[in-house]
Amino acid sequence: MIIVMGIDASIAQISEVVTRVKGLGYDAHISEGEDRTIIGVVGSGPTIDREQLAMMAGVKEVIRVSKPYKLASLEFHPEKTLVPLNGVQVGSEKLALIAGPCSVESRSQILETAHAVKEAGATALRGGAFKPRTSPFAFQGLGEEGLKLLAEAREATGLPIVTEVMDSELVPMVCEYADMLQIGARNMQNYALLNAVGKSQHPVLLKRGMSSTIEELLMAADYILSHHNSRVILCERGIRTFETATRNTFDINAIPVLKQTTHLPVLADPSHATGKWEYVEAASLAAIAAGADGLIVEVHHDPECAVSDGRQSLKPERFAELVKKARRVAEAIDRIL
Amino acid sequence: MIIVMGIDASIAQISEVVTRVKGLGYDAHISEGEDRTIIGVVGSGPTIDREQLAMMAGVKEVIRVSKPYKLASLEFHPEKTLVPLNGVQVGSEKLALIAGPCSVESRSQILETAHAVKEAGATALRGGAFKPRTSPFAFQGLGEEGLKLLAEAREATGLPIVTEVMDSELVPMVCEYADMLQIGARNMQNYALLNAVGKSQHPVLLKRGMSSTIEELLMAADYILSHHNSRVILCERGIRTFETATRNTFDINAIPVLKQTTHLPVLADPSHATGKWEYVEAASLAAIAAGADGLIVEVHHDPECAVSDGRQSLKPERFAELVKKARRVAEAIDRIL
Amino acid sequence: MIIVMGIDASIAQISEVVTRVKGLGYDAHISEGEDRTIIGVVGSGPTIDREQLAMMAGVKEVIRVSKPYKLASLEFHPEKTLVPLNGVQVGSEKLALIAGPCSVESRSQILETAHAVKEAGATALRGGAFKPRTSPFAFQGLGEEGLKLLAEAREATGLPIVTEVMDSELVPMVCEYADMLQIGARNMQNYALLNAVGKSQHPVLLKRGMSSTIEELLMAADYILSHHNSRVILCERGIRTFETATRNTFDINAIPVLKQTTHLPVLADPSHATGKWEYVEAASLAAIAAGADGLIVEVHHDPECAVSDGRQSLKPERFAELVKKARRVAEAIDRIL
Amino acid sequence: MIIVMGIDASIAQISEVVTRVKGLGYDAHISEGEDRTIIGVVGSGPTIDREQLAMMAGVKEVIRVSKPYKLASLEFHPEKTLVPLNGVQVGSEKLALIAGPCSVESRSQILETAHAVKEAGATALRGGAFKPRTSPFAFQGLGEEGLKLLAEAREATGLPIVTEVMDSELVPMVCEYADMLQIGARNMQNYALLNAVGKSQHPVLLKRGMSSTIEELLMAADYILSHHNSRVILCERGIRTFETATRNTFDINAIPVLKQTTHLPVLADPSHATGKWEYVEAASLAAIAAGADGLIVEVHHDPECAVSDGRQSLKPERFAELVKKARRVAEAIDRIL
Repeated sequence: MIIVMGIDASIAQISEVVTRVKGLGYDAHISEGEDRTIIGVVGSGPTIDREQLAMMAGVKEVIRVSKPYKLASLEFHPEKTLVPLNGVQVGSEKLALIAGPCSVESRSQILETAHAVKEAGATALRGGAFKPRTSPFAFQGLGEEGLKLLAEAREATGLPIVTEVMDSELVPMVCEYADMLQIGARNMQNYALLNAVGKSQHPVLLKRGMSSTIEELLMAADYILSHHNSRVILCERGIRTFETATRNTFDINAIPVLKQTTHLPVLADPSHATGKWEYVEAASLAAIAAGADGLIVEVHHDPECAVSDGRQSLKPERFAELVKKARRVAEAIDRIL
Repeated sequence: MIIVMGIDASIAQISEVVTRVKGLGYDAHISEGEDRTIIGVVGSGPTIDREQLAMMAGVKEVIRVSKPYKLASLEFHPEKTLVPLNGVQVGSEKLALIAGPCSVESRSQILETAHAVKEAGATALRGGAFKPRTSPFAFQGLGEEGLKLLAEAREATGLPIVTEVMDSELVPMVCEYADMLQIGARNMQNYALLNAVGKSQHPVLLKRGMSSTIEELLMAADYILSHHNSRVILCERGIRTFETATRNTFDINAIPVLKQTTHLPVLADPSHATGKWEYVEAASLAAIAAGADGLIVEVHHDPECAVSDGRQSLKPERFAELVKKARRVAEAIDRIL
Repeated sequence: MIIVMGIDASIAQISEVVTRVKGLGYDAHISEGEDRTIIGVVGSGPTIDREQLAMMAGVKEVIRVSKPYKLASLEFHPEKTLVPLNGVQVGSEKLALIAGPCSVESRSQILETAHAVKEAGATALRGGAFKPRTSPFAFQGLGEEGLKLLAEAREATGLPIVTEVMDSELVPMVCEYADMLQIGARNMQNYALLNAVGKSQHPVLLKRGMSSTIEELLMAADYILSHHNSRVILCERGIRTFETATRNTFDINAIPVLKQTTHLPVLADPSHATGKWEYVEAASLAAIAAGADGLIVEVHHDPECAVSDGRQSLKPERFAELVKKARRVAEAIDRIL
Repeated sequence: MIIVMGIDASIAQISEVVTRVKGLGYDAHISEGEDRTIIGVVGSGPTIDREQLAMMAGVKEVIRVSKPYKLASLEFHPEKTLVPLNGVQVGSEKLALIAGPCSVESRSQILETAHAVKEAGATALRGGAFKPRTSPFAFQGLGEEGLKLLAEAREATGLPIVTEVMDSELVPMVCEYADMLQIGARNMQNYALLNAVGKSQHPVLLKRGMSSTIEELLMAADYILSHHNSRVILCERGIRTFETATRNTFDINAIPVLKQTTHLPVLADPSHATGKWEYVEAASLAAIAAGADGLIVEVHHDPECAVSDGRQSLKPERFAELVKKARRVAEAIDRIL
């Protein structure tokens, strides 16, 4: 931590800051510049609240030197984490492909889609039983009934199930059915929920919040990892910006940034990242070319009649087409799909 | 709802859209323009999924005409809602002033601050017992012990208690102690929580999410209102933008927009909206001048030692000073503080 | 400047960085922390390119300690700058009020509006002769004819003229007519233009770019100030965010930030900051309460027929009403309007 | 255009709007819904100012149905535009690769880099002679001297020259040397400049502004196209968002959106879009996979000593490596590099 003093800071103020730093168990290295004095906080000790130092008289700014996340950091944990999913070690050269409808709507719908995505090459089946909807008047999901239908689809196809859990109370129930818990974008900073899925020891797919920084995503991962649950996969799904031509702005940069910053695998969700099915293919190929460890894609056999997110869902035949193209791009960068 | 057809839409496609609209129980008004055909969806019936229509062949765009929120809308509920809080009818000409520390830290801290803000003119005491923290390694609040200390402070000062609830499971416990439940910015779209506080029938202070639109804030209010809990106060607390000079960007425009859009009262949180105590006074006076129904301000007797958010907390004497200035501005626009 | 080395930086790498720093004429202060080494760059010398150091082997990050603007900085120039405008020392306790139509449209229009805003208490008349329009098919302004009409309105009312200049080539012509040159938001980083108005020695109203940081605004001011033209007034006019309920998001925080950072006066433009006339009054009062040194407001005698920006223009009678209210708010914070 | 009336609009107000619409030479189609009346504006005539209608009594909202750009629109000009550049028809299956340093610094630097990028497979050489710099104290470019060095590099390598022009006054001089004019992000809405390059009939590379919507980019292209200069290439170079891990957020979605919206070719600038050389390769491959018609990449033989943007520049050997990988990805989607 670096403490930058104001250009008019008095010697007494500098000395008070030094005393405070030492009182916290650290060393203070003073550098006197032409304009101003800078104090380096050196050593190890209890966490220091940067803001407290920032408020001391004469202090202009306190600059953090270390990153605020720890357990998810590649610098402190240089070995890549692999998360197994139906024979794929997610994070290895082999890509994962999670596909399925936004919501589970009916037995026939989920079974039909499950068979179709399996045939096209999916690693796992996604589908929402509990849906976060902006309006209370919109379809909220089938609940446990939806989970049972997902389990039936797993039975029928052998595909593991990835489904969202929205509330800490529901974690035990969802764990009974799901192979991997999804934390949705709106809940990335729902700490009660992060703690609950961390404790569950279930694999977790953690989506980035729509206005969360990459750093905050890694801090959210730290919540789960702090319960010694290391099977965490991160997911970039688009952020909120001023651009309205697409539902979200796909932050493709996040993929190489995360791959160079964390040991956790990184998926991309081209469906939410664009919000319109006609851009999903381009976004999917881009994600793979950028180094994503896989995709999670919305597929629906009849998007025009989907109860949610039909606008961004691919028909099974388009998805199969996408998989073929994605495979070629994967090979071009020496990966396998 | 307006359906805009592409310039190359065929007559068959137009007719299919009309059939679909009628099948949903609505009338379809066709306007043939020079370039393209536009279809107005008229009448009343079940909610129509705009996206489904948008995916029909030949359709270029589907434009919503009505707002997606209902219960919070001033257009449909033209009478202003007043929420009583310690003698103030929040939403009336008299302004509410909620003040207190970010976190409850100790008995002496909360009591000292409670007395100080009461003396300065506060309507209610705020203080967090459960804290949403970006890092799992940061102080997470005193929990129920904190709630008890808040209750003791209420006993001692007569100030009602406003405190955050972060998880649906905790609603019953927090209701036992709090006079008003706060939903924090990170939980504005935690629907399980919104439903739980709606059902509780407790008054609610609903903060805008840091990247939520005003429309989404009103839709979140609809969740609470749909449980016939009408004692809801909205709170603008700054949004996330590219500007880094302040912690958030205070969306002051949201105040007149909300006052002209909803019947619910609107507070401002100048502490989070700026993130630095030196700007809190300016932001507070601005909020009142813009028409806010009150303020929620962080006050700490020793900000340099606050365990959280000290950087944006006012000392009691500065807060007292602020109240005096705020009173003058309130009078200048014919309101009372 | 602070150089943060990676945790695995070798002694050779550290020593190379130190050599480079010394080669640039600075001293290097080494602080060895538990995890990593930090090198402080101390002394004075030629400008150092932070990015070059950042690319040296073993370097993790290079952190700037000083602000990148100089001439506009209050820290280096602690005396407030006052810019005279028709008897008001802009930046003093007395507020400036610049008002008029978006575009000059006709002789009668500009004269009528000029008289109306003068009567309501305006300090100066605004009006665009050259208009930056997003579409090439929209009205582009009357050009020099518009400048002549503005000069005529000055003659008739005594109000000085503030008008936009959009291109460096036009600076001499606009200087012939205008009392103050306006640099529009889209041109805040048009450096050829900033240099040209700097050299002109004419007073300048510099608007913040719609996605420019406060720091960048001050760096743009540095361009003008570097030509020893110190009559520069800054103007906050709203920034671009994800919110669509208003045309821009009025960054009210920018006002106290600027007042505490620069010696230059700061105006607010509530018309562009909201984009809708019904919010202009609230935004104006907020700006004054927050400490702005004045306002620039769009006024049109017939907004429904304005050729540009009618949606955000006030009628003269509403403007007169606004001035009365603004006067009361100004008095409440011990300022004069 | 669709005019949505308020739910309490009177019959007189509706009739006044209809009269106005007809007075403008259009037909008005009235749809009476359950809650409110909607008026469709049908036919062709002079451009209607949406804002003027929006201000009429009883009107709630006016919704645009057509896009505000015309000449750049694929809907109105369904044939793809190809822009020739050194044997590549930019916009065809063959990709363009423009590479070179941020700034021209010296004869040896530009010649060395030119030879290196040519050898690696570049189509054209980029290099800035006039540089837009945020600070007036930073290196501003070599000016005409730089243009001469670029011309010499063209002579030596055969590569055509792409270089930025920052001010309308300089267009004739830059045209003398450059094969393609670049409009930088900061000048995307510098209309005097857009008109000047339009009139010049020189090929133009138009970069998206850092906070411009895709729609605004197309409207800026309309400025150039309106002078019958059709050799315009668009360039996505990252937008400004809240994320700070990278210099900009690469809006990869913009590529498929533009390809489906306009007939103009679309390049990507992975150097500015990321701002850090370590992410340039991932962003480049992503751009190609997403369908970009080529890349513009910063290459410098000694990035640590580059006078500008070294942080995001690739060394020639890394660039050669990138070209090899990019070629494989291009082939995977049936394109040629």
